[in-house]
Amino acid sequence: MALIVYSGGLDSTVLLHKLAAEGRADGALWADYGQRHRREYDCAASNCRKLGVALDVADLSALRPLFGDNALTSAAVGVPEGEYAESNMRMTVVPNRNMILLAIAAARAIALKTDSIAYAAHSGDHAAYPDCRNEFADALDGALRLCHYEPVRLERPFINMSKADIVKLGAELKVDFSETWSCYNGGELHCGKCATCLERKQAFKSAGVEDTTSYAE
Amino acid sequence: MALIVYSGGLDSTVLLHKLAAEGRADGALWADYGQRHRREYDCAASNCRKLGVALDVADLSALRPLFGDNALTSAAVGVPEGEYAESNMRMTVVPNRNMILLAIAAARAIALKTDSIAYAAHSGDHAAYPDCRNEFADALDGALRLCHYEPVRLERPFINMSKADIVKLGAELKVDFSETWSCYNGGELHCGKCATCLERKQAFKSAGVEDTTSYAE
Repeated sequence: MALIVYSGGLDSTVLLHKLAAEGRADGALWADYGQRHRREYDCAASNCRKLGVALDVADLSALRPLFGDNALTSAAVGVPEGEYAESNMRMTVVPNRNMILLAIAAARAIALKTDSIAYAAHSGDHAAYPDCRNEFADALDGALRLCHYEPVRLERPFINMSKADIVKLGAELKVDFSETWSCYNGGELHCGKCATCLERKQAFKSAGVEDTTSYAE
Repeated sequence: MALIVYSGGLDSTVLLHKLAAEGRADGALWADYGQRHRREYDCAASNCRKLGVALDVADLSALRPLFGDNALTSAAVGVPEGEYAESNMRMTVVPNRNMILLAIAAARAIALKTDSIAYAAHSGDHAAYPDCRNEFADALDGALRLCHYEPVRLERPFINMSKADIVKLGAELKVDFSETWSCYNGGELHCGKCATCLERKQAFKSAGVEDTTSYAE
């Protein structure tokens, strides 16, 4: 059984469906680390309800002052437009976010007597996010196996898959993609212009799967 | 330079003094994870003020419901009396506490552009706490070096020292031990009876250093 680090985004929603289909989804953990909006939470709650998976919330909003300025949690920094490039990708990084989330997920897994946690890092994240890379996942898995009396394992089934591969898998699993959220801006609809919206559009196109997302433009 | 994970306890207060004496204390991080009392915080704030080290607070009290029942954060479980034994030591474990604190400290270090974090795990903790052992610290150090664009290092200078060794070092560094807190109970004075008070008393005795702690009995 596994506890899923679940943002309500496309990748982790497919992960939730995959583990639920395997009968291995023992719970999901959504973290509030001071994001600009709660659309991701609404998507997470909706998918968990549908699949009958318990959703816990880790309220980390009080940590916001520790993280410094970045586009996801700081009002002082705007969300960059256009495709991912090293400079604007770095602006979207909450420092060490994945280790923080995975450490808390492991604590929750221990409390629930679950022996595994899972996250949806994929190969498209590698260039931008050090904590989505194989080497990081391998090293953290090693530490998680030693953090408590019984080992906790870190599952990362998508780490060598592209986002288009994840879209294809999601389509097979009948994921309702309109109930997943990617956009970094806080609008009612996906903006269609920020780096993560462009990456989302491209993934559907590459996968040959209909994109049911409503974009503002 | 290093950011110190600082509880206000004896061990981390000696660590703070050691790094300050070396001119390497770049900040300290105190975490509120739902402890029964704030005496540790008062000690932490007092020592940081005296040494001119900035103290940040990571408010994790909202995570308390995720951690399950344990003697440090749950009102439903009493603090065990008597010497450390495996059964009562396990009751004092907040699951995966050190990884959570070290991950947040690393995030803060990245925001401050500091390349190192330090914690005061020592050899006396090894039997009780998996996340104070060499193997865990080595593995987590490996993950921290990969979590961001530049590596973060994990310093653990006390990991092969006993608590008595730490008391001796603290005496050399002129630490005011009366401004450090160990007791797991929430009294005005150290209770003198819980496992951590007994361990504290024994460390002073073994070190041959005067114990200036006021014990209730």
